[in-house]
Amino acid sequence: MGTGRIRTALKIDREKPAWEQPGLHNRWHPDVPSVSTIAQNEVVKIECIDWTGGQIKNDDSADDIKNVDLTRIHYLSGPFDIESAEPGDVLVVEIQDVQPLQDEPWGFGGIFDRNNGGGFLDEIYPKPAKAIWDFEGIFCSSRHIPGVRFPGLIHPGILGCAPTAEILAEWNRREGELIAANASADRDVAKPPEPKGAHAGAAQESLIEKIAREGARTIPGRPENGGNADIKNLSRGSKIYLPIHVPGAKFSVGDLHFSQGDGEISFCGAIEMAGEITLKFSVLKDGMAKMAMKSPIYIPGPVEPHFGPGRYLTFEGFSVDDQGKQYYLDTTVAYRQTCLRAIEYLRRYGYNDYQLYLLLSSAPVQGHIAGIVDIPNACTTMGIPMDIFDFDVRPEAEVVKRDMGSCAFASS
Amino acid sequence: MGTGRIRTALKIDREKPAWEQPGLHNRWHPDVPSVSTIAQNEVVKIECIDWTGGQIKNDDSADDIKNVDLTRIHYLSGPFDIESAEPGDVLVVEIQDVQPLQDEPWGFGGIFDRNNGGGFLDEIYPKPAKAIWDFEGIFCSSRHIPGVRFPGLIHPGILGCAPTAEILAEWNRREGELIAANASADRDVAKPPEPKGAHAGAAQESLIEKIAREGARTIPGRPENGGNADIKNLSRGSKIYLPIHVPGAKFSVGDLHFSQGDGEISFCGAIEMAGEITLKFSVLKDGMAKMAMKSPIYIPGPVEPHFGPGRYLTFEGFSVDDQGKQYYLDTTVAYRQTCLRAIEYLRRYGYNDYQLYLLLSSAPVQGHIAGIVDIPNACTTMGIPMDIFDFDVRPEAEVVKRDMGSCAFASS
Amino acid sequence: MGTGRIRTALKIDREKPAWEQPGLHNRWHPDVPSVSTIAQNEVVKIECIDWTGGQIKNDDSADDIKNVDLTRIHYLSGPFDIESAEPGDVLVVEIQDVQPLQDEPWGFGGIFDRNNGGGFLDEIYPKPAKAIWDFEGIFCSSRHIPGVRFPGLIHPGILGCAPTAEILAEWNRREGELIAANASADRDVAKPPEPKGAHAGAAQESLIEKIAREGARTIPGRPENGGNADIKNLSRGSKIYLPIHVPGAKFSVGDLHFSQGDGEISFCGAIEMAGEITLKFSVLKDGMAKMAMKSPIYIPGPVEPHFGPGRYLTFEGFSVDDQGKQYYLDTTVAYRQTCLRAIEYLRRYGYNDYQLYLLLSSAPVQGHIAGIVDIPNACTTMGIPMDIFDFDVRPEAEVVKRDMGSCAFASS
Amino acid sequence: MGTGRIRTALKIDREKPAWEQPGLHNRWHPDVPSVSTIAQNEVVKIECIDWTGGQIKNDDSADDIKNVDLTRIHYLSGPFDIESAEPGDVLVVEIQDVQPLQDEPWGFGGIFDRNNGGGFLDEIYPKPAKAIWDFEGIFCSSRHIPGVRFPGLIHPGILGCAPTAEILAEWNRREGELIAANASADRDVAKPPEPKGAHAGAAQESLIEKIAREGARTIPGRPENGGNADIKNLSRGSKIYLPIHVPGAKFSVGDLHFSQGDGEISFCGAIEMAGEITLKFSVLKDGMAKMAMKSPIYIPGPVEPHFGPGRYLTFEGFSVDDQGKQYYLDTTVAYRQTCLRAIEYLRRYGYNDYQLYLLLSSAPVQGHIAGIVDIPNACTTMGIPMDIFDFDVRPEAEVVKRDMGSCAFASS
Repeated sequence: MGTGRIRTALKIDREKPAWEQPGLHNRWHPDVPSVSTIAQNEVVKIECIDWTGGQIKNDDSADDIKNVDLTRIHYLSGPFDIESAEPGDVLVVEIQDVQPLQDEPWGFGGIFDRNNGGGFLDEIYPKPAKAIWDFEGIFCSSRHIPGVRFPGLIHPGILGCAPTAEILAEWNRREGELIAANASADRDVAKPPEPKGAHAGAAQESLIEKIAREGARTIPGRPENGGNADIKNLSRGSKIYLPIHVPGAKFSVGDLHFSQGDGEISFCGAIEMAGEITLKFSVLKDGMAKMAMKSPIYIPGPVEPHFGPGRYLTFEGFSVDDQGKQYYLDTTVAYRQTCLRAIEYLRRYGYNDYQLYLLLSSAPVQGHIAGIVDIPNACTTMGIPMDIFDFDVRPEAEVVKRDMGSCAFASS
Repeated sequence: MGTGRIRTALKIDREKPAWEQPGLHNRWHPDVPSVSTIAQNEVVKIECIDWTGGQIKNDDSADDIKNVDLTRIHYLSGPFDIESAEPGDVLVVEIQDVQPLQDEPWGFGGIFDRNNGGGFLDEIYPKPAKAIWDFEGIFCSSRHIPGVRFPGLIHPGILGCAPTAEILAEWNRREGELIAANASADRDVAKPPEPKGAHAGAAQESLIEKIAREGARTIPGRPENGGNADIKNLSRGSKIYLPIHVPGAKFSVGDLHFSQGDGEISFCGAIEMAGEITLKFSVLKDGMAKMAMKSPIYIPGPVEPHFGPGRYLTFEGFSVDDQGKQYYLDTTVAYRQTCLRAIEYLRRYGYNDYQLYLLLSSAPVQGHIAGIVDIPNACTTMGIPMDIFDFDVRPEAEVVKRDMGSCAFASS
Repeated sequence: MGTGRIRTALKIDREKPAWEQPGLHNRWHPDVPSVSTIAQNEVVKIECIDWTGGQIKNDDSADDIKNVDLTRIHYLSGPFDIESAEPGDVLVVEIQDVQPLQDEPWGFGGIFDRNNGGGFLDEIYPKPAKAIWDFEGIFCSSRHIPGVRFPGLIHPGILGCAPTAEILAEWNRREGELIAANASADRDVAKPPEPKGAHAGAAQESLIEKIAREGARTIPGRPENGGNADIKNLSRGSKIYLPIHVPGAKFSVGDLHFSQGDGEISFCGAIEMAGEITLKFSVLKDGMAKMAMKSPIYIPGPVEPHFGPGRYLTFEGFSVDDQGKQYYLDTTVAYRQTCLRAIEYLRRYGYNDYQLYLLLSSAPVQGHIAGIVDIPNACTTMGIPMDIFDFDVRPEAEVVKRDMGSCAFASS
Repeated sequence: MGTGRIRTALKIDREKPAWEQPGLHNRWHPDVPSVSTIAQNEVVKIECIDWTGGQIKNDDSADDIKNVDLTRIHYLSGPFDIESAEPGDVLVVEIQDVQPLQDEPWGFGGIFDRNNGGGFLDEIYPKPAKAIWDFEGIFCSSRHIPGVRFPGLIHPGILGCAPTAEILAEWNRREGELIAANASADRDVAKPPEPKGAHAGAAQESLIEKIAREGARTIPGRPENGGNADIKNLSRGSKIYLPIHVPGAKFSVGDLHFSQGDGEISFCGAIEMAGEITLKFSVLKDGMAKMAMKSPIYIPGPVEPHFGPGRYLTFEGFSVDDQGKQYYLDTTVAYRQTCLRAIEYLRRYGYNDYQLYLLLSSAPVQGHIAGIVDIPNACTTMGIPMDIFDFDVRPEAEVVKRDMGSCAFASS
């Protein structure tokens, strides 16, 4: 009669490291053992650890960011078998709710050291930095970035079903080719399988070794299963349609964000947190063929914060870089310029650039591809809801430089 | 006492070709003579020709698209001097209204021939095609794409102030370098100054020649003045802040769109039309320094159509192309894949791919940069408002293949 | 092929008084002769005169309001026959657009003299007053109420189909009973048929007399045909389903408003204007029985201005009047108190009460019936979008009393 | 450093009856002892019991509704003293979150027996009925009303500060006069103080008796302190400004609703539940005079569900009752008719009228006062979001009568 509690399909243990918990894993591989089976139309709660597995502390130093072990991140809860799921079916996942853990109402955003993670603007902002965000109900604010407060559009950064061995091999092939082609580059262009730090859930012995050797890193999203797509509005009430590749689907979820801006520009830019997600599952038989599906599809939920269109302050960027170099329809270059335009504007209020880089990564900014055909310039826009500031940021308003404190930096 | 008509600052002549009208021009150059002066806080109406200067007809053949003369496009209304505007100031332009011409309630979208214009998906869709859209008040529908109808988020594709000679030289330098570096490419990567088809407004004799020789093409938007940014929500009620580079500002506007999707993917993808725009002007003295402005900023208007977030069917794309090649954080590749995912899904209802390519260019689809830091994959999304279709396109609904007719193609 | 103009089904003559125009009428009666026939699915434009038939002038005196002839108001355009419409069918009317007349970009709001029209708060505000509003594209502002500016949610105050003779008799019966029961009241409680000022369109001789004698006044809306419902969001893109009572439907429309607040509290409180409405008609056969319809139903359009819910300053009122008298679940009393709470709050900025009474009648304020069951108090709310003010009206902001000028009053 | 838990200022005891808990009370009286003191800018969680104090069960009979003891309802959590609050100040309450109790994800709506509570439509629907609603994250659905599911706009029905003895006396005076004037009526028009069932929190002995004798019932909201205003969008993120009448403010809150429609037409029509509310408090010194405040003011939160305006099916009602009797501008009569129009329309899908009466009380329907000046008819509207139904309710869609089961009724 619907009067009972909702079943919790996975509880995490806050006393143990992530890598000792059999319900967590941090590689995509078809052989990671399933945690349990979830019935059709069942609603379950699943606890998730924050994406660094607890490496980041609620303090005022960014030393933890500087030294973060990036082989030990992105621990996912699962995989879960879904009753009756078969390859070629589509898994329908309804996000009924997402919450921080009851007793840990805080999260963090980080700018990684250019030499340990980096980010979208790392040539300009190479230093590590951190902001701690406190949650008060639906709102968050940060002692490291005063003057802003906004409701979170809370969502999982990662969800997806396990790949087959064939899909996994294809990932490793194509990403390997990119790495090979950029062997002399001064930055990582992709992350190959890496046994160090691999966690294979409840796998034992030789299986651990196999998964560690072959398993795909969880950092990029990929077309075949979605994964770390970091889509900021996959929030409460959303419905996601996921391709199923292996029997049982082997669904995993993790990397919860209290809020994120389009692009998640500082890499660890969303407000990262441990939390609990409430999901409902069903299976559309033979759905992949019926829906002509190659990549996940979703319908956002109905409860996004309403910032009317007239409340967005919007910046433009084009595919010409800081040095005046012209690129051909390069949206990535254009979006980088768009971010810089916003930083230059907001800097006038007293923020340092690292605070703003953190803010634009985590606030619900809208990043649009405005025009992508007018050679040679792509045009992108970033719309910032003015209502997140507790002072007036309209162009007409007087600019008063304030003491905005600072985000956390690493000790030098 | 505000009881009079609003002054019309420019009327176009529908009987004459665009290139014979002194109030139009199609090159960015500081020396194009001004049409007239507009006072501070004055509200004026400005008529604009469609961006092909009338080359495209309301019929069922795409021959006109196939043979379009691309040196004779983007005729802008202006330039207008704004009272008291000086270099370093910011021009505030309020879009009070935009309308089609009273007696021409129709527009068009086009897919250009790969060898004459091309577009975002031209490797896959190389043929020219056309759709005519009829306007009924705020709505539009097309006999060439049945089953859809939506309210236009009507806007100008192009607006901006004239560059200085120095800025113009910089444009020609950097775009020239790109052209030079791609001399052997099989496609144009940028459009250099081109005397053919240049129209310098009211300029006379040697000035015509100079403008034709030096003037920047209007096709790309550029960071210094905005220009052809093709931003789909610069609609009624928007407020745009433009950098002023020359005395009087020399403001131009044109390329009106009844509606456009993010990216305007088929190049001439918006619903192009002739029309009338009502603008109000004011000047912020020394605004560029005060606002730390390098590129235009804007605040969208308050009357965008409301499609609640839960009414968007959303597709994902990643920077892996059709052949399985992996790109490094390439948003442009990701958005191309996103478009293809949407086309594959909608094709099942009976549309041909060219109809969908036209539709996704012109309907108010939301194109977001979801994640841009998870190497090697950028992730983009395209959200399509389900309410634009008069049948049910939700994944749960049964797919019925219909007779959807066709868009217009060229005779072969 | 859709390339032609939209047909104008009625043009009004700005040089002639309303009562001399055969396409206008100001009584509901089945025998008013039809102007013309409109085809199924036809789109037409219909011009409408302002509801006073031109009695109110664009000046700074309210003498015209004071002396307005209330028997000569509410001139409707029509009636129009709709092809194939029969009693029992439902007329579907799509509002494709509504605009002020091209050359008359202004409107007015009025507070009527308590002894000539009155209004919702006339015990407190008995004097006549007027505000002229200027239109700039989608926005309006008033020299008589400085500091506010908002986009109009433009709509017709009146639309409906003609009653049968039986329905008309029922209206006259029940309203007559109310009048009889309140014979000794100090105010009109309803308006009976009134030959004076009646205009029967193209009717001739004895028919004129019959319509003048029997025809229902257009002031109240009525359940059977809608009529003067004054619904503020019947705007662009709305779809209205109207009961059809007589062959051909005999549809009429008029009383265009540039904007109105819920309740239209000052009676002539909306921003009244002459204008042009673009409509599309179709007929649902036997629709009244199929839809169980006794009164009109509608679906608002998709382009209302977006003021996010967090941008509404909201006042409460209960069914206890100013003298401390307790009423039993009287929503009307509660809403009157709600209005007064808003006036008291806004008065602090320098407005006089009549300015605010006019403003709350015409701005897009949301008037909700919050609770209607908690005896003895009904609770209503009025939400005012804070973005209509050009100064900060949040409770946290400092109150600065300004010189707000005045609305127009009558000479004494 | 913000890292701790949020303090829970009141826990309720689910094992004990409400009337034995010192942190609850159900009368407004200045002498109810305070539970504790809350600091300025403190964020606290407060648990609340459902408004019947647990009398209603999660089962399929409405016997509990039929026999509910209405003297034992509306138990409020509090009162709480707020640090530094003085009479004449304004209490600012920010609703940071509202949730059902973790282990009780359900609520109920009830139609009371006409002879025990009644409701807005009790002449037409005199029987008791009940619907149980199950909560899945942000959504709710009911086995008693199939085919609907919607996100809750979760809110407290009651909040306010204690009255002074003088205000209390004024309430008792004016409500007493209404009762006296209607002594012969066949229904209660107001609820006078009633010692039976009174719960005075932690009060002892003679104080209990005094509060029971004098204390105002919590059923109606009242202008002086708000109270049971039943405002459906006082939800997450809202900010309420409350008049303070006694030292410490003595703030109370309760009657949590998972969702409610405008009017809460069936009296116990909202989805009633026990839950936890997270609040933040601050005090504006001398705020009542500064804000010209006689009744509470609020600003709704930013996260209401988005149902675009074009997704509302909207009904009209006028002040003419079922028997054809004409009322003078009676909004209450008009809203009753509006409700009936909606019921008649929705009945065609197979629902019984009691299911619909329950549904319209609890779903987020918009009840507007459209026109209130066009004598003699007030016009009200009710907009129903079509997206709450899992079948197509647009007028154009075919009506299929389904087996919709039934709500719970009482045994006869």
